[in-house]
Amino acid sequence: MIKVGIVGGTGYTGVELLRLLTAHSHVQLTAITSRKEDGLPVADMYPSLRGRVSLAFSAPEKARLTECDVVFFATPHGVAMTQAPELLAAGVKLIDLAADFRLKDTRQFEQWYGMPHSCPEVLVEAVYGLPELNREAIKKARVIGNPGCYPTTIQLGFYPLLKADIIDASHLIADCKSGVSGAGRKAEVNLLFTETSDNFKAYGVSGHRHTPETVEQLQRFTQQKIGLTFTPHLVPIIRGMHSTLYGRLTKEIDNQTLQALFENAYQNEPFVDVMPFGTHPETRSTRASNMLRLALHRPDVNGVPGDTVVVLVVQDNLVKGSSGQAIQCMNIMCGLEETAGLIHVPVLP
Amino acid sequence: MIKVGIVGGTGYTGVELLRLLTAHSHVQLTAITSRKEDGLPVADMYPSLRGRVSLAFSAPEKARLTECDVVFFATPHGVAMTQAPELLAAGVKLIDLAADFRLKDTRQFEQWYGMPHSCPEVLVEAVYGLPELNREAIKKARVIGNPGCYPTTIQLGFYPLLKADIIDASHLIADCKSGVSGAGRKAEVNLLFTETSDNFKAYGVSGHRHTPETVEQLQRFTQQKIGLTFTPHLVPIIRGMHSTLYGRLTKEIDNQTLQALFENAYQNEPFVDVMPFGTHPETRSTRASNMLRLALHRPDVNGVPGDTVVVLVVQDNLVKGSSGQAIQCMNIMCGLEETAGLIHVPVLP
Amino acid sequence: MIKVGIVGGTGYTGVELLRLLTAHSHVQLTAITSRKEDGLPVADMYPSLRGRVSLAFSAPEKARLTECDVVFFATPHGVAMTQAPELLAAGVKLIDLAADFRLKDTRQFEQWYGMPHSCPEVLVEAVYGLPELNREAIKKARVIGNPGCYPTTIQLGFYPLLKADIIDASHLIADCKSGVSGAGRKAEVNLLFTETSDNFKAYGVSGHRHTPETVEQLQRFTQQKIGLTFTPHLVPIIRGMHSTLYGRLTKEIDNQTLQALFENAYQNEPFVDVMPFGTHPETRSTRASNMLRLALHRPDVNGVPGDTVVVLVVQDNLVKGSSGQAIQCMNIMCGLEETAGLIHVPVLP
Amino acid sequence: MIKVGIVGGTGYTGVELLRLLTAHSHVQLTAITSRKEDGLPVADMYPSLRGRVSLAFSAPEKARLTECDVVFFATPHGVAMTQAPELLAAGVKLIDLAADFRLKDTRQFEQWYGMPHSCPEVLVEAVYGLPELNREAIKKARVIGNPGCYPTTIQLGFYPLLKADIIDASHLIADCKSGVSGAGRKAEVNLLFTETSDNFKAYGVSGHRHTPETVEQLQRFTQQKIGLTFTPHLVPIIRGMHSTLYGRLTKEIDNQTLQALFENAYQNEPFVDVMPFGTHPETRSTRASNMLRLALHRPDVNGVPGDTVVVLVVQDNLVKGSSGQAIQCMNIMCGLEETAGLIHVPVLP
Repeated sequence: MIKVGIVGGTGYTGVELLRLLTAHSHVQLTAITSRKEDGLPVADMYPSLRGRVSLAFSAPEKARLTECDVVFFATPHGVAMTQAPELLAAGVKLIDLAADFRLKDTRQFEQWYGMPHSCPEVLVEAVYGLPELNREAIKKARVIGNPGCYPTTIQLGFYPLLKADIIDASHLIADCKSGVSGAGRKAEVNLLFTETSDNFKAYGVSGHRHTPETVEQLQRFTQQKIGLTFTPHLVPIIRGMHSTLYGRLTKEIDNQTLQALFENAYQNEPFVDVMPFGTHPETRSTRASNMLRLALHRPDVNGVPGDTVVVLVVQDNLVKGSSGQAIQCMNIMCGLEETAGLIHVPVLP
Repeated sequence: MIKVGIVGGTGYTGVELLRLLTAHSHVQLTAITSRKEDGLPVADMYPSLRGRVSLAFSAPEKARLTECDVVFFATPHGVAMTQAPELLAAGVKLIDLAADFRLKDTRQFEQWYGMPHSCPEVLVEAVYGLPELNREAIKKARVIGNPGCYPTTIQLGFYPLLKADIIDASHLIADCKSGVSGAGRKAEVNLLFTETSDNFKAYGVSGHRHTPETVEQLQRFTQQKIGLTFTPHLVPIIRGMHSTLYGRLTKEIDNQTLQALFENAYQNEPFVDVMPFGTHPETRSTRASNMLRLALHRPDVNGVPGDTVVVLVVQDNLVKGSSGQAIQCMNIMCGLEETAGLIHVPVLP
Repeated sequence: MIKVGIVGGTGYTGVELLRLLTAHSHVQLTAITSRKEDGLPVADMYPSLRGRVSLAFSAPEKARLTECDVVFFATPHGVAMTQAPELLAAGVKLIDLAADFRLKDTRQFEQWYGMPHSCPEVLVEAVYGLPELNREAIKKARVIGNPGCYPTTIQLGFYPLLKADIIDASHLIADCKSGVSGAGRKAEVNLLFTETSDNFKAYGVSGHRHTPETVEQLQRFTQQKIGLTFTPHLVPIIRGMHSTLYGRLTKEIDNQTLQALFENAYQNEPFVDVMPFGTHPETRSTRASNMLRLALHRPDVNGVPGDTVVVLVVQDNLVKGSSGQAIQCMNIMCGLEETAGLIHVPVLP
Repeated sequence: MIKVGIVGGTGYTGVELLRLLTAHSHVQLTAITSRKEDGLPVADMYPSLRGRVSLAFSAPEKARLTECDVVFFATPHGVAMTQAPELLAAGVKLIDLAADFRLKDTRQFEQWYGMPHSCPEVLVEAVYGLPELNREAIKKARVIGNPGCYPTTIQLGFYPLLKADIIDASHLIADCKSGVSGAGRKAEVNLLFTETSDNFKAYGVSGHRHTPETVEQLQRFTQQKIGLTFTPHLVPIIRGMHSTLYGRLTKEIDNQTLQALFENAYQNEPFVDVMPFGTHPETRSTRASNMLRLALHRPDVNGVPGDTVVVLVVQDNLVKGSSGQAIQCMNIMCGLEETAGLIHVPVLP
């Protein structure tokens, strides 16, 4: 059994880790920290866990995290990096669901997250936790920077096109739509039911934190200079993310070959489903599961096949976009079956 | 008083015409037809109209539409064109909310709507009912093809850019999101609450009827050959449409000048609101009103201003996207104040 | 023109007053106060009001409220009573949308609202602002305690039954469901989209502030001692309230007579719609309007008509349940047509 | 391995059976019938099952249901009873999720379902499949009438009170609220997103099919004559049911004893969670799981504890209210662990 600790278990990525890890047969939950809720049984905050999780939140200093095998940080940006050195010294593996270990470029980190990076020496060895594009490095990692939700969809959607060098990498467009849980469990007026339901809007169009992370990673797969226009939108759904990606083809290619690029890239991936060409994946087809599904389109322009390829990508932002992906990384790091504890049938309807 | 008839008053554009016309001080509702609901008081189907609309539905042959001054067709595609000649002969003005009089190219009509056009001689004189881009023609029109909801946002969003000839017209991208009422009041499984709520998806990505209409109109404003990639999505909201438009700049232009292009274009328009540069319009800020709001963005790419301009456009698809726009056309055709009966404060929250 | 001031215009009842008063032809909005937002144009906070409201929020001390004819308090409980004496002295009429002037019994006020009542001498003359049951007193009032949203539905639903003395007043049950806007525009986790959507729950079942207010008012209409079990629930809709009322009949009465009781009671009421016996009013049939609709049922028990009468009552909690009712009171107090500015057709769908 | 067939797998109870049975380690899915979709892979209709269910729908006559150990009927009312005799003769156990085997009184069945009962001889031996109140009979059953969703909550909520004979059984009130999936996957206008979202209403108040079933079952637990007023409402959520039950106490009892009645009644039940006295269960705390949660309240009336006890009951209508309960019955009938395949942590948020 792997002893697991969770730092910051009161938010949505925290409770999602609890939902998933509770049913993971190789995991023993040993500590969940929350300074504010010290002593409160987890199930009192989340009645969905009544009868399933008997742990109480504990203040960090009582939690004996150094005795864990793996510690997840489901905390705001900037927390994991302050505790990483001590945990690593104690031999604990660490998976940060926030941004502390995502960006290799510390100037970018400081610009977008508004704080200096406190442990660049750990950052050097940190591995970006996107298994489909980084599996070998994850196997050997001690520290994982778990990808952002948007970047997961954008990278898996553009990767086969960049790898094959058939699109103009300098003018990628990612028009993305996220469910409200992506913003976390925060007492903010703009996240109220009355503000977000029966409403739709874009936000952060002039610049969003997930852009530099996505660009840094995508750059690994092409000689071209990556240029990305990323437009996030807020959809009145709880879970779910839909990214509509646009790339302009620079080479002649027929649709069958295009589809084969994707099918070959992901043929052994348990959590990436390449759907038939021309179909429309729905977010709910991944709800509460670790699956990401995608489909390709090549719209006609003025009656003939255009040179724009459209990739539709969906996932549950709290699972493949966050906590599920983190557990997938844990499985890989710990030598478990990669799918252990992650075989949920999506909840539909 | 203008005597108004509505053909096909049982759908959402029909009931929205009723909501708006009931409060229009220059209009006298004289007939609402529905073969299926002949004799049923309108307020029995729509209790929201109890005490406000005393008319009953009547079968078309009883409705004496030829005595009206204006007749709206809130019917499926293909109905208005069969009745147009008789009504015009009787001196009735006609506004079709469906597609019969939108496309000048009858081959396109036949291809996308699956039926031959039955009165091309009327089509010749029909005017495309987008007042902001077509006001003079509307004034003199006897027959209006009321624009589709998506095309209204795409045209008003791209128009100033095309007019100024500063973007690549051959690679326009319109990533659009529509509330469910855009699909009408139809007994279809894929429109059920249980299928559409807590869910998000694209549809018709490989080809959609609104593309040829939009291209035909946009072509009027540029010498370049229009090429449009249009991606519609379904959002779980009742009313509201958000279009995210992407154009690649072909000339150097600063953001102030860009903004001025739009402000100048729409400075006298009562129903187009150009919001400050860099803001994010919400669909609900137009809910139940005839306003269309838009805002411009110019995202950085790799730390410098990119060459992609993003236009965010919102409207209520049932009002400015349909019934409200139709009444705006009626006002213009009949010499009334253009805003008559259309001054509603949007309902928020 | 009536000069109107609004204290506390940033919440939902405040913005709803703005939406309604903007279109009220006898009203001139002169001041909207908010200490926190002093100087901010109202339309910057609520883009739905762009082009319609040019006022900015102003700090209370700058607002010159004593020059108004009527001042609405759309503030938290306890604010209006501190400012009432000064405004009354200046000849201003005052309508409080909070609870300061609802309860005649100051001990009840202090128990449920956790503060002493600061001006019992004003409370003595304050009038409970439910026009249908209190019109004559409202005409002469200087101070109005505007009813709570739940109490409005419960009183109008039970009144004809109590008046006719045909139910057991000591065992009334009100099972009520409110849209989320009823909780106001507050940054609280339990009001987030992610917490309230796709979810349903009761709250405050063991005791709720609206019970004493309702009981105090209902007691006016019967010699029996009122006993009320009131169960509020939170529905994932923005606006709308549905109250399901249960009363046990103590006298033989047939359904036609029962229906006639209600029709007679409300036959001249412009904002109460008694629907046909056995129908099911929907909240949306009143959306964004000042209408309250109700319908009666008399379910069979074991195959014969039971002795329980069920009254279904719906309204928009922000209009008839709050801001619309307040304006209705203002109209009455100021000698205007009672329906002035309140003739909106409900927004459906 | 138990060989399982599903008749009518295209509706929501059918796909929910598939979701649950796919992850049930003792079950082998062998046939899913649908005459209309014969040959269509199940995962083509429900992409959430891609990669998890490889079966295709087959026409009933090809499905070889007589070779199954257990057959579930997820069909409209009236189908199971036509096929029951043949399957029973072949030694197949049968669980009907519709109403064919719920009501012992065939006159009631005929009155409420509008058809004669075609196999009363099977009905005689059929067992009502509510394990908590009927476990021993289920163990020996060959035919199960799976309870309706509403009746499950009403029975489990009232049972301890009736058993202890402390309430007036002749005036029970059940004010119930159901998510839209309870109405099934039917192409009906009144179930559209545009008709049900941002809306709330009651339906069937004058009489509903679930009343006779509930009364027939509740009658088993009391000498008093049961009288039930049942008011169903439609909530704009996909899954989830909340029943608010009212009973008038006929004996003195303190709240601790009241609570103990429920805790004792359900202390060994894996799927009934008696929450602390005075709490408010949420529907989402059971989402996608087989748990039913309930809590008790005893509201004050006029400042003293009243004689009305309020029971709040929540469940997922598609799981404990239907398909999950059916599998719970299967487990019992087949001698498996009762919780096999049903240990899902509820999905929250």
